[in-house]
Amino acid sequence: MTTRKPVFLVIGAGAGIGGHAAARFAAGGYHAVLARRSDEEGLAKLVSEIEEAGGSASGTLLNASEDGTIEELIERTERDIGPIDCALYNLGAQIGNRALHDTPHSTFELGWRLGTFGLFRLSHAMLPAMVERGKGSLLVTSATAAVRGNAGQHSHAAAMAGRRMLCQTLNAEFAPQGIHVAHVVVDGSVDAPDTLGKLLGDKFEAYKASKGEDGVIDPAALAETYWHLAQQPRNCWTHEIDARPFTDVAWWNDTPISAINRGKPGA
Amino acid sequence: MTTRKPVFLVIGAGAGIGGHAAARFAAGGYHAVLARRSDEEGLAKLVSEIEEAGGSASGTLLNASEDGTIEELIERTERDIGPIDCALYNLGAQIGNRALHDTPHSTFELGWRLGTFGLFRLSHAMLPAMVERGKGSLLVTSATAAVRGNAGQHSHAAAMAGRRMLCQTLNAEFAPQGIHVAHVVVDGSVDAPDTLGKLLGDKFEAYKASKGEDGVIDPAALAETYWHLAQQPRNCWTHEIDARPFTDVAWWNDTPISAINRGKPGA
Amino acid sequence: MTTRKPVFLVIGAGAGIGGHAAARFAAGGYHAVLARRSDEEGLAKLVSEIEEAGGSASGTLLNASEDGTIEELIERTERDIGPIDCALYNLGAQIGNRALHDTPHSTFELGWRLGTFGLFRLSHAMLPAMVERGKGSLLVTSATAAVRGNAGQHSHAAAMAGRRMLCQTLNAEFAPQGIHVAHVVVDGSVDAPDTLGKLLGDKFEAYKASKGEDGVIDPAALAETYWHLAQQPRNCWTHEIDARPFTDVAWWNDTPISAINRGKPGA
Amino acid sequence: MTTRKPVFLVIGAGAGIGGHAAARFAAGGYHAVLARRSDEEGLAKLVSEIEEAGGSASGTLLNASEDGTIEELIERTERDIGPIDCALYNLGAQIGNRALHDTPHSTFELGWRLGTFGLFRLSHAMLPAMVERGKGSLLVTSATAAVRGNAGQHSHAAAMAGRRMLCQTLNAEFAPQGIHVAHVVVDGSVDAPDTLGKLLGDKFEAYKASKGEDGVIDPAALAETYWHLAQQPRNCWTHEIDARPFTDVAWWNDTPISAINRGKPGA
Repeated sequence: MTTRKPVFLVIGAGAGIGGHAAARFAAGGYHAVLARRSDEEGLAKLVSEIEEAGGSASGTLLNASEDGTIEELIERTERDIGPIDCALYNLGAQIGNRALHDTPHSTFELGWRLGTFGLFRLSHAMLPAMVERGKGSLLVTSATAAVRGNAGQHSHAAAMAGRRMLCQTLNAEFAPQGIHVAHVVVDGSVDAPDTLGKLLGDKFEAYKASKGEDGVIDPAALAETYWHLAQQPRNCWTHEIDARPFTDVAWWNDTPISAINRGKPGA
Repeated sequence: MTTRKPVFLVIGAGAGIGGHAAARFAAGGYHAVLARRSDEEGLAKLVSEIEEAGGSASGTLLNASEDGTIEELIERTERDIGPIDCALYNLGAQIGNRALHDTPHSTFELGWRLGTFGLFRLSHAMLPAMVERGKGSLLVTSATAAVRGNAGQHSHAAAMAGRRMLCQTLNAEFAPQGIHVAHVVVDGSVDAPDTLGKLLGDKFEAYKASKGEDGVIDPAALAETYWHLAQQPRNCWTHEIDARPFTDVAWWNDTPISAINRGKPGA
Repeated sequence: MTTRKPVFLVIGAGAGIGGHAAARFAAGGYHAVLARRSDEEGLAKLVSEIEEAGGSASGTLLNASEDGTIEELIERTERDIGPIDCALYNLGAQIGNRALHDTPHSTFELGWRLGTFGLFRLSHAMLPAMVERGKGSLLVTSATAAVRGNAGQHSHAAAMAGRRMLCQTLNAEFAPQGIHVAHVVVDGSVDAPDTLGKLLGDKFEAYKASKGEDGVIDPAALAETYWHLAQQPRNCWTHEIDARPFTDVAWWNDTPISAINRGKPGA
Repeated sequence: MTTRKPVFLVIGAGAGIGGHAAARFAAGGYHAVLARRSDEEGLAKLVSEIEEAGGSASGTLLNASEDGTIEELIERTERDIGPIDCALYNLGAQIGNRALHDTPHSTFELGWRLGTFGLFRLSHAMLPAMVERGKGSLLVTSATAAVRGNAGQHSHAAAMAGRRMLCQTLNAEFAPQGIHVAHVVVDGSVDAPDTLGKLLGDKFEAYKASKGEDGVIDPAALAETYWHLAQQPRNCWTHEIDARPFTDVAWWNDTPISAINRGKPGA
């Protein structure tokens, strides 16, 4: 199968941000390629939903942390489907809060493989063809942990910070060559059953309810922002953007309006 | 005149970002109120162009640095036109690079009046009604100088940093009350005849030519991003976003791809 | 009186950071000039204590927010005492947390006059002579509010952000001319009876007790860091540094070690 | 050999920052343990110089990127020499500017092993004993690349950003337990023959000359700042500090005083 549509590739296409971004780009005229680690059935469902809505999509299972997998996917997609116009690197590396002694070497390394190295490998494999075509976009989902390191986030924060800085070096090298790299700091919980849902398990629904109406990011809303980023003309590119629900305290704040600053009066 | 359309108010409505934002919101169904300091003719032209394109707009001259003016405009707009749904604070405070000895006290103070205090006054006058209505947006055009202080930018950087931090405190207090505050770091030159054009004078066209194709931000493109921000649902609000042409070196970088890092090898 | 000692000038010399810095520099061989707004008795006490410890100091009352006062002090000090080798701008602008409607225009303006404009005026008046001598230091006490804007901090955060960015523009212009500008982000409560003590009133002692042993910054300890900054040779200058008690959560963090990240799982 | 002196451990003890920090701490009464990858002769020379100056030191060769090496060193030091009071992680990961296609997977991974993972491993192995003793310091040399990603710095910037964020998570977990973690952003070239000297080869002397008098950081000066950090009492700890020569443009600036802002007028 080949397509004349521009191709949108999602690495990390669960039922949250990845799946909704795929749907949004498909609705906008792209062929969406959805790649995820497991759950063939869930993947097929996402593809079907896009097709039922009149869009074009295909899916593939992929263990992104394994050498050669992302590389093979890029090669196969470009050859069998078409030139990748936009890719979304959407793999998370959040494992919850863990003290240092509860964060083994292997966990820290896996965080880096998913959080930083996978994006490097994707860029290595995909950007040369984009450079040759003189255009392309690389959207990167990221997290608060990329800009500050909370207690318990050793693996996640180091991995996401590496991701963020890699986005900057990629932007510095490739923006002048026509490639748009955007780093999205998702600073709030997302209604994502395949990631946050699995992390919280049977507490997920209660958690969402506790956040109140519109207290959790709707991945369809975030997908609209991804779409906007990918459509910006090259005279006006955004490299970094944040997003959170209106009820969430921004990561840099510690004072809800209802409280006085008990922690650091004077500071 | 009153309107059933939502009202979009621009303070600083020249032929660049402000005027294009007004046109974009008018095209999206808003009534645009354009306020600027001078040039009645230029203002009338912007209003006419919006009306000729089928939109709704009105204009007013305003010396924003003078006490009471912004306040009166808010009161008049809410009373005579309709509830302000979204406002854009678009006043610049750039005066070019000047050494400290060449930056008089009065210049520094005026920078603050336009850069920081005007936004405070606008918020003071406008937000209570938005809070009562439980919704509204405040978009704020800002500059690289808000995040780093270059040589010669004493007045501009101090004023823009105050603007940025005020956006954070406004967001912290008002986001939970349904008001979306967004701070836009414009990190590149804008094709804005009324501001940059006047700063550079007859060197403006040569400057733009020197930047190459798509080397200067098209204010219509930036207006599209403002529109996107104003349409984000409250579960997914952006507070800060940057924008620059693809050819521009981002403010945090100093190494064009063509060069090696001559400045700080090892650092 | 004139002195052969290098002169250390403190603007904002209460019994906290300012007074302890004066004592530290006096112990290191400087003549300390202490300027503060009020409390002649308190001022005399600080001067006496320095002299009793074998140091050299003098004091003056000064309403820094009034035009001409800082300027006159600089002129008088340089003429009557000696060349200012190092100055500390130590005026605070913290007024506690106040909602926007509870922050009048005049409060916001006063915040700027003390927080930002006073430093600009000091620089204007003092730096030319330092440039002529090819050396000098300007230490600036700052606050967490300079780097993030919490709810209720409209006046303080805008003023401190202006202060920080002004430090960057001053550094950019004057470092290459031999003037060391250092911006100190005090990210914790200081045991300062004349500022925090007055803000908290009779709750000050209980507050300090609640923070535990070493839970509040000892201004003598911070003064040691100021001393270190002023002694750095020009091949190795620090522009920005933070400080907080070991028990305080850093401003960018929200998760004490004892808690899980309840706020934003996944983000 | 065991010592009653507090132990200062340097990982990355060349003739630049590491060696000078060892000498400074030895002069201050510590026993310095110097670890480096190669050059047994150079290592012996550093140890001798410290001993000749009346200090106490010992040295060891160590391939820090190899599993188990740092861990064994910690265990051996604590057992044979004494409790580590302060450690300096001083391994660099700078390899010069390289385009993405010239940065192989293995290079990127090695950057992470030295830049991020080694610090994680050191913390894992060393902090539990410090926690038990209720005190200790971890100083971390870092680079501009930790806070912004320049073109060509893919490997270095991702690794240093991971290092910086790890310092934040370590600080968040361990500061309240009495462990001081400090992240030093070295934003300038250091007169370090074993790192920058090797990177620049026979151009090193010409490079230093081109920077002018005091235009390169003297590692002895920086060592004085490390010493200061390690001596801060726990009520007043610095987590992050920068340093550069007075002639260097700070990383966030792009305008030397002698130039106008040609790049982004208006921004």
